[in-house]
Amino acid sequence: MQLSSCYLFQDLSKTQLNSFIAIGNETHIQKGQWLFREDEAAEQMFILKDGAVELLTTVEDDIELPIAIIRTPGNCFGTSTLVPPHRYSLSARVVEEGTLLTIKKDDIEELIKQDHELGYAILINLSKHFLDRLKETRQELKIHFKTIFKSMLH
Amino acid sequence: MQLSSCYLFQDLSKTQLNSFIAIGNETHIQKGQWLFREDEAAEQMFILKDGAVELLTTVEDDIELPIAIIRTPGNCFGTSTLVPPHRYSLSARVVEEGTLLTIKKDDIEELIKQDHELGYAILINLSKHFLDRLKETRQELKIHFKTIFKSMLH
Repeated sequence: MQLSSCYLFQDLSKTQLNSFIAIGNETHIQKGQWLFREDEAAEQMFILKDGAVELLTTVEDDIELPIAIIRTPGNCFGTSTLVPPHRYSLSARVVEEGTLLTIKKDDIEELIKQDHELGYAILINLSKHFLDRLKETRQELKIHFKTIFKSMLH
Repeated sequence: MQLSSCYLFQDLSKTQLNSFIAIGNETHIQKGQWLFREDEAAEQMFILKDGAVELLTTVEDDIELPIAIIRTPGNCFGTSTLVPPHRYSLSARVVEEGTLLTIKKDDIEELIKQDHELGYAILINLSKHFLDRLKETRQELKIHFKTIFKSMLH
């Protein structure tokens, strides 16, 4: 597993990366299993070792809106664990059996308390990730607006 | 001006807040003036002292889509200055004459280099802000999907 393929860990030193692996626990996951649901308290983040996990949200409580599928080993999700109010912003369901590295919020906070430079480096990557997703989502919204504008002109 | 009303500065100490005021420069702004345009290199962020600034994006190059109006003294914008690739994610235009505190990217980076705990605290706030905007934007997108689903059912 290339831990460095998780966007959070870009530009971290090998020592810093190893300190993260050290606080992680391997968990086996089954197809169909829900890892977390939107708005639940986010107590842990995950790094994929193998298998595949789908991130999604729901519209009108029953229609599922897929957001992303995590299938590259080393990719991470559940990272709203790192940010107040510490609640998952999406739901996650296993689509292919596999293994995760689970890292607890409290253990990450403990690690950062001892090394704020590490904390700063991770949060630069996290902010960048959220900003990229925000730009993408705004872009999708623009497409809807364009459709509306065009239908108004006809 | 309540500098602490800028979301970036939540829970910072008075000393930390003062270190930010110290690196800022006052700038007078005129109605209609563009402070920056979407995708331009982000070399500085801003804190409103008085007046009002509109944040917006454009659809199809000519239709403006308003995102927010900054009119509470102490509110900040242009914060993608803090995150790679350091480009503004929106455009900003003055809607009411006033005064800004302008803080240069290089000066912020210098400040953080000396105090990573401060950098970490600011980036927790910035990540939270981007995540909140992301959730809001996803919510807007869901409203569009609902409209489409409903029109499909009729």
